[in-house]
Amino acid sequence: MNFQEKYDSYLNIFNARLESFCRSLECKPEILSESMKYSLQSGGKRIRPVLMLAVAELLGVDAEVVLDYALSLELIHTYSLIHDDLPEMDNDDYRRGKLTNHKVFGAGNAVLAGDALLNTAYSILFDCCKKGREYVDAAGFICDGAGVNGMIAGQSADLYCEANKINDEKWLQYIVKNKTAKLITAAVAAPCVLKGGKYFLEFKQFGEDLGILFQLVDDILDEKGSFDKLGKTIGKDKEENKLTYVSFYGIDESCVIADVIYDRCIKLLDGIEGDTEFLKQIAAFVRHREV
Amino acid sequence: MNFQEKYDSYLNIFNARLESFCRSLECKPEILSESMKYSLQSGGKRIRPVLMLAVAELLGVDAEVVLDYALSLELIHTYSLIHDDLPEMDNDDYRRGKLTNHKVFGAGNAVLAGDALLNTAYSILFDCCKKGREYVDAAGFICDGAGVNGMIAGQSADLYCEANKINDEKWLQYIVKNKTAKLITAAVAAPCVLKGGKYFLEFKQFGEDLGILFQLVDDILDEKGSFDKLGKTIGKDKEENKLTYVSFYGIDESCVIADVIYDRCIKLLDGIEGDTEFLKQIAAFVRHREV
Repeated sequence: MNFQEKYDSYLNIFNARLESFCRSLECKPEILSESMKYSLQSGGKRIRPVLMLAVAELLGVDAEVVLDYALSLELIHTYSLIHDDLPEMDNDDYRRGKLTNHKVFGAGNAVLAGDALLNTAYSILFDCCKKGREYVDAAGFICDGAGVNGMIAGQSADLYCEANKINDEKWLQYIVKNKTAKLITAAVAAPCVLKGGKYFLEFKQFGEDLGILFQLVDDILDEKGSFDKLGKTIGKDKEENKLTYVSFYGIDESCVIADVIYDRCIKLLDGIEGDTEFLKQIAAFVRHREV
Repeated sequence: MNFQEKYDSYLNIFNARLESFCRSLECKPEILSESMKYSLQSGGKRIRPVLMLAVAELLGVDAEVVLDYALSLELIHTYSLIHDDLPEMDNDDYRRGKLTNHKVFGAGNAVLAGDALLNTAYSILFDCCKKGREYVDAAGFICDGAGVNGMIAGQSADLYCEANKINDEKWLQYIVKNKTAKLITAAVAAPCVLKGGKYFLEFKQFGEDLGILFQLVDDILDEKGSFDKLGKTIGKDKEENKLTYVSFYGIDESCVIADVIYDRCIKLLDGIEGDTEFLKQIAAFVRHREV
């Protein structure tokens, strides 16, 4: 299988679980489930679930075992996008080529759709916790990655720096490490927790590097990409004086940093036994993606 | 001890845990923890934690065992108030006599403060889950009460009826049962789950009735109460054509219904062994409160 075939095979496994979840989700009033599904089913790369399935396979953890964790992670990621896009946050009209949640359902319903996705993610994880202690630990690890020392801290720092026109390297790194890298770290390290901690530190570091790389390339694409490919408004970071890799280092130096971090990802994977080829290809995809 | 002394004794136990939580909560940027603490420390009756501690004592469950559940419940309740008060939701300027979260910190930070409280509540509960299966079940029960078949469904239905000018008894009951009663049910039934299901059905029914009673009296106070006592703007329900007990049945019939539900609460408690006196007094307090 080439990279794309392998990626799609993981994607298909995940999408089947996601679709079954969406089919079973019926709320009263309907607008609640409709607004949740609208954002869940609007595509996206699903890179977190794919990463989780790939690491699980490498470690010999059954896909069945991690699928609910992958689902909850995608729910958490999707809630964060809906709230991030709100008028009082990033005020985005488009996401993945479609109108953002609040543009379709109104801001009040979008707030609730986000809350609902976050809460449902944990409802799924509490069910997983019934299976034993390592399942509890993996759930807690994901929750911490999403929380006040993780993704939410990064979002808050992002707002803070924008409001206070802060242009500082330490804050930039703090934002990226938390807002983007913590959930990607959760994706690759949670299977290690389920496997009793095997390669936990290695994958934690890999997740952090890959997450930073992901955001770095996102920042580059916001400057150099196109709406047609990315499905979202381009050039917004600059327009809003956002603190990003590109605004701080410029495009050329950002590309150099991206190459350095990419190399670090590969070296980390070289230290792990088993077939890490696909994970290396994901790192290359993250570095060179145009979408 | 009279009722107030007993209430205060539970309140003091809970407030000590809450204060210790707040002291240990330090986020970067500070505005994240400050906005969370602002709403957590703005007072309120803390009726959910007090109920949980009272039921735990009745069942012989150690206060220590339920305190983290009580804390997480109060965090969930507080997040729901912050998001409910947002301009795109109820658009409230005052809560408990103080400016609402978004009025102080801005809507973006208020969205994040709510997200952060919800996420932290579950982080605390995942820690509890390490102690064994009944702890997992109690955490899952609280999560379901807060979720898309619980509180969030009620909030969504509330928005839906307001947007569509629906004036319907079934929707009214659905809103109240979910938006208000599900978390109060979680407060009184979670200790039963921790005790292997003892009196679970009885307390589930008691929680639902007490929750409905709580909301009914809230609706009456919105019509008849005062800002000085309630600390929030009065008459807003009517002004915004909200579907409430008072708008649907009128004040007099609402009071009759409240008395009927109060009687049902007392009968339910009569069916439970042990000293239910304090819980009866809470029901009386909920029925006749002016705050």
